[in-house]
Amino acid sequence: MESHLTTSWENKLSLASSEASSILVIADSNLPKSYSKEVLDICNKESPTHIISFEGGEGIKTLSHVSEVYVHLEKMGADRKSLVVCLGGGTITDMGGFAASTYKRGVSLVHLPTTVLAMVDAAIGGKTGVNTEMQENFGLLKNQIGTFYNPKMVGINHNWLQSLKEEEILSGWGEMVKHALLKGGTHLKELMKLSPKLEDLSPMLIRSARIKEAIVNRDEKEIGERASLNLGHTVGHAIESLAHDQGREMKHGVAVAWGLVFALEASVMKMGFDPTTAEELQNWIVSEILKGIEVDGADAVWSKMSQDKKNVKGNVIDVLMIAPGEVKWDFVWEREEFTILWEKFRGRYT
Amino acid sequence: MESHLTTSWENKLSLASSEASSILVIADSNLPKSYSKEVLDICNKESPTHIISFEGGEGIKTLSHVSEVYVHLEKMGADRKSLVVCLGGGTITDMGGFAASTYKRGVSLVHLPTTVLAMVDAAIGGKTGVNTEMQENFGLLKNQIGTFYNPKMVGINHNWLQSLKEEEILSGWGEMVKHALLKGGTHLKELMKLSPKLEDLSPMLIRSARIKEAIVNRDEKEIGERASLNLGHTVGHAIESLAHDQGREMKHGVAVAWGLVFALEASVMKMGFDPTTAEELQNWIVSEILKGIEVDGADAVWSKMSQDKKNVKGNVIDVLMIAPGEVKWDFVWEREEFTILWEKFRGRYT
Repeated sequence: MESHLTTSWENKLSLASSEASSILVIADSNLPKSYSKEVLDICNKESPTHIISFEGGEGIKTLSHVSEVYVHLEKMGADRKSLVVCLGGGTITDMGGFAASTYKRGVSLVHLPTTVLAMVDAAIGGKTGVNTEMQENFGLLKNQIGTFYNPKMVGINHNWLQSLKEEEILSGWGEMVKHALLKGGTHLKELMKLSPKLEDLSPMLIRSARIKEAIVNRDEKEIGERASLNLGHTVGHAIESLAHDQGREMKHGVAVAWGLVFALEASVMKMGFDPTTAEELQNWIVSEILKGIEVDGADAVWSKMSQDKKNVKGNVIDVLMIAPGEVKWDFVWEREEFTILWEKFRGRYT
Repeated sequence: MESHLTTSWENKLSLASSEASSILVIADSNLPKSYSKEVLDICNKESPTHIISFEGGEGIKTLSHVSEVYVHLEKMGADRKSLVVCLGGGTITDMGGFAASTYKRGVSLVHLPTTVLAMVDAAIGGKTGVNTEMQENFGLLKNQIGTFYNPKMVGINHNWLQSLKEEEILSGWGEMVKHALLKGGTHLKELMKLSPKLEDLSPMLIRSARIKEAIVNRDEKEIGERASLNLGHTVGHAIESLAHDQGREMKHGVAVAWGLVFALEASVMKMGFDPTTAEELQNWIVSEILKGIEVDGADAVWSKMSQDKKNVKGNVIDVLMIAPGEVKWDFVWEREEFTILWEKFRGRYT
């Protein structure tokens, strides 16, 4: 499959909009106005263009927000040749992508990610998704509703990263570390020399995004290898979801970074991962993320893990590593073993 | 692509349920209890099975009903290897199919249609869909939200047709006539000898369904030929939607039958369709559907047609015929021409 990733996004967007009967830009309202103006200027030259804004964040990943997009598309008379452009972070590309994939059974889609996390992860690979609405006594389950739907283009514009807060860069860095662990070799060594600052990460963005793209292209529907991208995510999602339930803020990429530290711990015990390498990697990751992580006990984490989308026939599935670049993506946890390891991890890092 | 259509549905369902981690049967609450019992008995042998019932009808094709299915799937702990079985008419297979295609980005799906319309049309071809909710001053737009998603199996059980009302059989007959016009040749001649009674139609069901399946397999994503299945539907949907807005009941297949009569009228004028053959076909169709059709004027119909999903860049697209079996699926209407023809058609048949 050819790459959808490009840095010459202006030309490609101009082409895509000339082929569209109408265009809806779904933008994050927190972005500087100059970003959407830049995009609208390119689109408007070619086709009637509308814009709808949402304040990006996990809260917009609901069917109610998707319905708002549907209504907007209807009111502007969108047809099957219309184009949806998502301008924002991962919550905008996830929610907007789902709307585009299901409106008239799918209209064209372009992602213009504006965060590190969206550039290297959320906007790559064609997964769209929203969360289930909060049910009584039930909590929020992430990305339970979604589709596989490929955008025509994912445009990378480094300039849009200038306005990011430090914590958002740190969050994207978590996924970049994950890609580096999956790839191993010189890419990992090069990344380990950098710190999660924009100047350092910028040249690595497209390389990191391409690691994910290559894995996805080999296994689009997640029958096998694509599951390796869940490295750090079984535990990461669990602690993120617990933090959310308790009203604490935890950035996705930071939760994933902690998930990676735990996955390395578990990989030493279960997969024969070299303990010295693991410790070196763990220290490197931990040195860059905020210390004093507030995490719950094994029971609470296990309860979230047992609701994970990746589980099959009640088994809690996780991704572990044999060595950097060598992945076991269908490891099955026994509850007791997890509990012992988790408490050890917790004692060490909190 | 291999055929998903089968009459040996018990064996195939048993196999599919043995491969599933859990099963949700979405059933029409109006069906005799023996139908769902038959299905549950087969499933229960293999995997934990749950059932959720809805009163079938256009009213269940909403995102709220889809959400109910999501919640049910969550509460029963459904994972990616779960199976959704839709037992009912087209509104159950459309809505349930959409839920299955978007829950965890798609779980397995089996359709067990219980109406003629669903057997020959709705359950065939992998289109799922729900309607947009009613917006103020906006009306209901049909099947605007949906996916392309293939069921593992469409099981045909003639016994389930026994409980159908006459009008429901008539409605399915409309789509069977459409398939016969698209196919032409001996199939059309054979169907023209029959009347829309269950005894007559039963042996033709699977043949009619296979005409649709063959067209879909040649053009799954509706880039070209699949659009020919919209024969009679541009006008059909418009008069169905107008009837709905005015609180009148009009069965989908009956609206389509009227759409076919109009399409033949237009095909004579615009495509050089043989007028004698057209009249013969029109008389045959009209003789079987209720006379005294109450239809609106050209302006009202055009207004609905101009909102049709098939339209591209504001053009109203329709399907016309050159001869039986020979289709033009991208005819573009001029409003003036349509108005003249519509009033002629209306004068003749109402």
